[in-house]
Amino acid sequence: MALAVSRKRLLNRLAELAEIGAIEGTSGSSRLAFTAADGAGRDLVVGWMIELGLDVSIDEIGNVVGRWSPPGSDPQAAPIMVGSHIDTVATGGRYDGNLGVLAGLEVIETLAGAGSKTGEGALTRPLAVAFFANEEGSRFAPDMMGSLVYVGGLALEEALATVGIDGAIVGDELDRIGYRGTTPCPGPPPAAYVELHIEQGPVLERTETAIGVVTGVQGISWTEVVIGGQSNHAGTTPMDLRRDAGYAAARVATFVRSLAEELGPPQVATVGALSLHPNLVNVVAASATLTVDLRNTDDGVLSEAESRLTAFLDELAVEEQVDIATRTLARFAPVSFDERVVDLVDKVAVELGFSTRRMPSGAGHDAQMLARVCPAAMIFTPSRDGISHNPAEYTEPDQLEAGANVLLGAVTALASTDLPLLAPDEGNSR
Amino acid sequence: MALAVSRKRLLNRLAELAEIGAIEGTSGSSRLAFTAADGAGRDLVVGWMIELGLDVSIDEIGNVVGRWSPPGSDPQAAPIMVGSHIDTVATGGRYDGNLGVLAGLEVIETLAGAGSKTGEGALTRPLAVAFFANEEGSRFAPDMMGSLVYVGGLALEEALATVGIDGAIVGDELDRIGYRGTTPCPGPPPAAYVELHIEQGPVLERTETAIGVVTGVQGISWTEVVIGGQSNHAGTTPMDLRRDAGYAAARVATFVRSLAEELGPPQVATVGALSLHPNLVNVVAASATLTVDLRNTDDGVLSEAESRLTAFLDELAVEEQVDIATRTLARFAPVSFDERVVDLVDKVAVELGFSTRRMPSGAGHDAQMLARVCPAAMIFTPSRDGISHNPAEYTEPDQLEAGANVLLGAVTALASTDLPLLAPDEGNSR
Repeated sequence: MALAVSRKRLLNRLAELAEIGAIEGTSGSSRLAFTAADGAGRDLVVGWMIELGLDVSIDEIGNVVGRWSPPGSDPQAAPIMVGSHIDTVATGGRYDGNLGVLAGLEVIETLAGAGSKTGEGALTRPLAVAFFANEEGSRFAPDMMGSLVYVGGLALEEALATVGIDGAIVGDELDRIGYRGTTPCPGPPPAAYVELHIEQGPVLERTETAIGVVTGVQGISWTEVVIGGQSNHAGTTPMDLRRDAGYAAARVATFVRSLAEELGPPQVATVGALSLHPNLVNVVAASATLTVDLRNTDDGVLSEAESRLTAFLDELAVEEQVDIATRTLARFAPVSFDERVVDLVDKVAVELGFSTRRMPSGAGHDAQMLARVCPAAMIFTPSRDGISHNPAEYTEPDQLEAGANVLLGAVTALASTDLPLLAPDEGNSR
Repeated sequence: MALAVSRKRLLNRLAELAEIGAIEGTSGSSRLAFTAADGAGRDLVVGWMIELGLDVSIDEIGNVVGRWSPPGSDPQAAPIMVGSHIDTVATGGRYDGNLGVLAGLEVIETLAGAGSKTGEGALTRPLAVAFFANEEGSRFAPDMMGSLVYVGGLALEEALATVGIDGAIVGDELDRIGYRGTTPCPGPPPAAYVELHIEQGPVLERTETAIGVVTGVQGISWTEVVIGGQSNHAGTTPMDLRRDAGYAAARVATFVRSLAEELGPPQVATVGALSLHPNLVNVVAASATLTVDLRNTDDGVLSEAESRLTAFLDELAVEEQVDIATRTLARFAPVSFDERVVDLVDKVAVELGFSTRRMPSGAGHDAQMLARVCPAAMIFTPSRDGISHNPAEYTEPDQLEAGANVLLGAVTALASTDLPLLAPDEGNSR
C-alpha cells in the first residue's frame, strides 16, 4: 500500500492561503509580488514550514527554501527540491503556484509522519520545498525572477534594482515586507527538482486526462512598445494630418493576432497591457505604451515572430508618422526537461492508476530555470475550462490530490537509493 | 480712427492666466474643470472683472458673467455677450478658451476707457463677458456643460450630479472651489453672443487667412464602449479559444479610422481614451473601456457614422465572443450661426483690413449653445500647425490682436443704435 497525502490538509492550506489578498466574491486572490499581501502569504507559509520542523532559509532575492533531512539521510547532500511560487497576478486564482508549494509541504509532512513505513534510511537525501520570488512578473519584469536569480541567470543587483509598473523598486519592497534574506544567490543546485502545477490550459480537461507529464516549456518573448505621436484636437485635425499614437497601438494589437494566426499553433500572441496618454475622449493620443507577449515551443518560429513584429513596427512608424521604441522585458528560449525525471513522473502516475499525457507547458514556470542547474520536470493537473490568471481558476479536489500523490511518489523515488542518483552536472547541459 | 485693444494688456493677461496650472517646461496649462487649478484661474479672472468695475454674477452651475452698462445705456436691456471658457484639457495650451474671455475683458476695458471717443449714448446696450463652466468635458461629460445648462438644454440637477473620470461629482467640486453660485439657471438670453477663439485646426494658417468667419459648428457624437471578455493566461490559451477584450478594443479603434476614411472629410473619428483590465503583460484582458468621438458638419452623415459603428460593434461581439455595452456621453447636432452676425463679423474684419474666410468649426464651442437662445457667431484666429489641446498650441501676437479688434468692432456695432437691434426671439428658430 503506497503512502498518500492528506487531501483534507492540502485543501485546507490552499483555502487558508487564498484568504490572504482574497478578491471579494470570488475564490481568487491578489498577491502581486512583494506587496503587503505577498508578505502576509509568505508569513503564513513560512509558519507552516516552521511547524513542520523544516530548516528555513531566505535568500537575497526573497526565495524561501524549507529543508528536511529524513532520519538516516546525509544532511549535507544536495536535496530533492519541490516547489513553485505563491505570488499571483492581480486577478489570480487559488491554485496557480500555491499548489506546488503546499503539495510540497504535504509530501514532506506525509513522509515525516510515515516514519516506520518508509523505514529509516529509505530516503538517503534531504528534501526541500521552495517558493520562488516574483514568478508572475506582473508587477516587476521579468517573470520567474526569483528562480532566475537562484540559478545565476540574472545578476542579484540587477534584479534588486528593477522598477515596477507602480514605480516601486524590488530591493525596497523586499525590505518593506521583511523578505530580503541573507542566504547568497545564486543558490546551491538541488539533486533534482520536480514542480506540481495546474495546467492553466484546456488540454487535460478536453482529453479527460488526470496527469500531464510535462516535457518542456514554451519559449517566451515579452516586448514593451512605446509609441510617440502628436496630441491634438479630435474635432479639428483632419484624419490625414494625424500622428495618432492610440491608433498605432491598436494596429499593433491587431497585427499580433494576425501574426499568431499566420504562424499557426502553438504560436500565441497577446497585447495584455495598453495605456494611452493623455487618455481623453477629445484628444488624439500623444503616446501609447503596450506590451507584446509572444510564445512558441519552437525557438526558430518564436524568433521569426519577433522579426516580423520588428518589421511591422518599422513600417507602422513610417506609415503613421510616429516614433516607436521597443524594450525587451523578458526572453527565454524553450526548455526541454530531463528525460529521466519525465519518464519517472509518467511511471509513478501510471502505477498509481492515473491516465497520463505528455505535453509542453504553455506558461513559464520556475522549473524551467531550475532545469539549467539540475535534472527537472513538472506534473500538471487539469484546469477547468482552461481558465487561469483569473479568480474563476478551478481544479477538482480529486485532481489536486492525484497531482500531490504523483509528486509524493516521484520525490520518494528520487530521494531513495533504489534509483540511480542524478548528479547535478548531468542536467547542466540541457 | 477706429478704437483698438491693448495688445500688451491682452498678452500679459494670457500669460498670467497660463501660469495657473502651468505645465512645466511648456507654454501650456492644465486646469481640468472644477479642480483647484480651475478654481485658482477663476479667482484670477474674477479679480480682473472686479477691477474693471463689472457686475459679477455666478450661477448655479458655476458660469461667471461680468456685466458692464455703458454711460447712457439701458441697464435693464439684454446685453451683447462675449466670452468662452477658462477650463482646459489635461494637456492644454494657453489660448483655447482663455483668448475669448480675456479679449472680452479687453473689449470692455477699451470701450470704458474710450469715453468721449465713443460718446455717451453711442452704446445703447450693456455688454457682458462670460466664462462658461466645464467647456472641455475632459473630466466630466458632456463638454460645453455650463453653456448647455445656461440655455436650458441640460437640467441643473443632472449636471450637478455628473460623476467624473476620477469619481468626483460636479456639485461637490463646485462647492469645494467656491463656485456654486446662486444666480438661477437657465440664464437670461443675451441680445447677441460673439465668441473669439483659436481655430484649433490648420485651415487659416494653410490659406494664409487672418480671420476665420465661423458659419457653424460640427455635430458631435461621443460614445463610451465597454467590452467584457474573459481574462486568461496569455501563454496557455489557444488563440481560437480567446475572448480578448483588448483585441476587440483595438478592432474598434482601427474600425473608426477606416470609417472616417470611407465617409471622407469632414468626417473625423477618434479613439482618444482606452483602458484595459487587468492590464498586465501575461493576461488576456478581461475588459476594455474606450471612447469613440465622431464629428461631421452634416447631421445625416454623422448619423450614418453612428449606425455603422453600432453595426460593427454587434458583429464584433459575435465574432470575438465578447459582451459590448455602449453609452452616449454627448450628442450635439451641427449648428448654423446667425447669418446677420456672421455677415457683421466678416464686414468688420474686412473694414479693418484683414483677410477673411468663412468656415465651419471642427470643435464644439459654447457659442453653439448660446445660438439656441440668441443670434450668435464666432471669430477664429489661426493656430500654428493646427495644434491644439496640447501645450505647444500657439497663435502669433499679431493674430491674437487682430481677433480681439474684430471682436471689439463687432460688439461695438451690435451694442450701438446704428444697427437694427436683434431681438432674442429671432435667434430661437436656428
